[in-house]
Amino acid sequence: MPAPAPTRERLVTEAMRLFSAKGYEATSVSQIEAAAGLAAGSGALYHHFKSKEALLDAGIDRQLDRRRAMRDIRALFAGLGDLRAELTILGRYLLNVVDEERQLLQIAARTEAGRSARLHAACAALIDGLNAELADWIGAWAPAMAPSQRAALAAVGVNGLTGTRFTATLLHQAEPAIADDRYLAEWTALLAARIEQHGGS
Amino acid sequence: MPAPAPTRERLVTEAMRLFSAKGYEATSVSQIEAAAGLAAGSGALYHHFKSKEALLDAGIDRQLDRRRAMRDIRALFAGLGDLRAELTILGRYLLNVVDEERQLLQIAARTEAGRSARLHAACAALIDGLNAELADWIGAWAPAMAPSQRAALAAVGVNGLTGTRFTATLLHQAEPAIADDRYLAEWTALLAARIEQHGGS
Repeated sequence: MPAPAPTRERLVTEAMRLFSAKGYEATSVSQIEAAAGLAAGSGALYHHFKSKEALLDAGIDRQLDRRRAMRDIRALFAGLGDLRAELTILGRYLLNVVDEERQLLQIAARTEAGRSARLHAACAALIDGLNAELADWIGAWAPAMAPSQRAALAAVGVNGLTGTRFTATLLHQAEPAIADDRYLAEWTALLAARIEQHGGS
Repeated sequence: MPAPAPTRERLVTEAMRLFSAKGYEATSVSQIEAAAGLAAGSGALYHHFKSKEALLDAGIDRQLDRRRAMRDIRALFAGLGDLRAELTILGRYLLNVVDEERQLLQIAARTEAGRSARLHAACAALIDGLNAELADWIGAWAPAMAPSQRAALAAVGVNGLTGTRFTATLLHQAEPAIADDRYLAEWTALLAARIEQHGGS
């Protein structure tokens, strides 16, 4: 049996879970204490974090660390030389990143504009990163495509992936309406058909 | 100068605005009263609605009425006989529906799972409707495409449209990162390339 997580770690985990389920504002310090197994309303949280906002910042930092770890994985599957094989794996990878970051995205969706600049910056960096990865890959396969068109195609592709998760979250679907394998197969066929028109083969 | 909206109407408008900005739970009856120009905390809201939930229901009904009005518009542009022209207009139409329903979608995104069955049903009907419209149209142009594949293609297409708005909302962008005209042009080219592979011309 693994040792129980230290209190600080438990507080971050439970706070992020509550923030994503209820929203940042609607979650009280007392609820976080109770969820982490501390006495609710005792203020024990303040031995570890100076405020609810500091706790959110720690949760965002933890997500950023995880994303850095994933970035190194991508080098493993570059350069297969087969457009559909590479795009299939890239699609799976991008959807996986979205799933890893789903809690963060949901907290941002449930939190009022302007509440946390750090939360906003973390989400913007995530979305920009997804778009840049797909646009870079498209550029390697269709070098004749204008950069602005490549950016638009990457945006439609990334939104096709984030959109499926946003919709599932919105509709509280435990499973997506269309299984990921089938969805990604169609996503791949769609983008491949367009890239092949521009000289990818 | 138009006559001021009746109190009941103002309450619905301000409640929906606050629910979408802050979330349903985080919005108090007193805040709604103040925003609608009634005495905050006076309970004057209860002369018009028996609860905050009844107010949300009235807001959802108002959205449903508007959507019914838009549905009749679509018949105007069917049957042009030109795949890209029809798809361009269909894309604009679908994005317009998403924009019309953005407040409702945002309320759902900011409201805890299981809070309002009616809110959930309204969002599910909206998303299902968008998917069905695009899938039907694809079926007319690519009758040989299997229904399950048509559904997957429609889902990628619809998520490409909803995703751009979800992302803009999440990142608090006043303007989308890519202008709608350019985005829709790429969305159209992408779907058209795929449909043409299946015999659409």
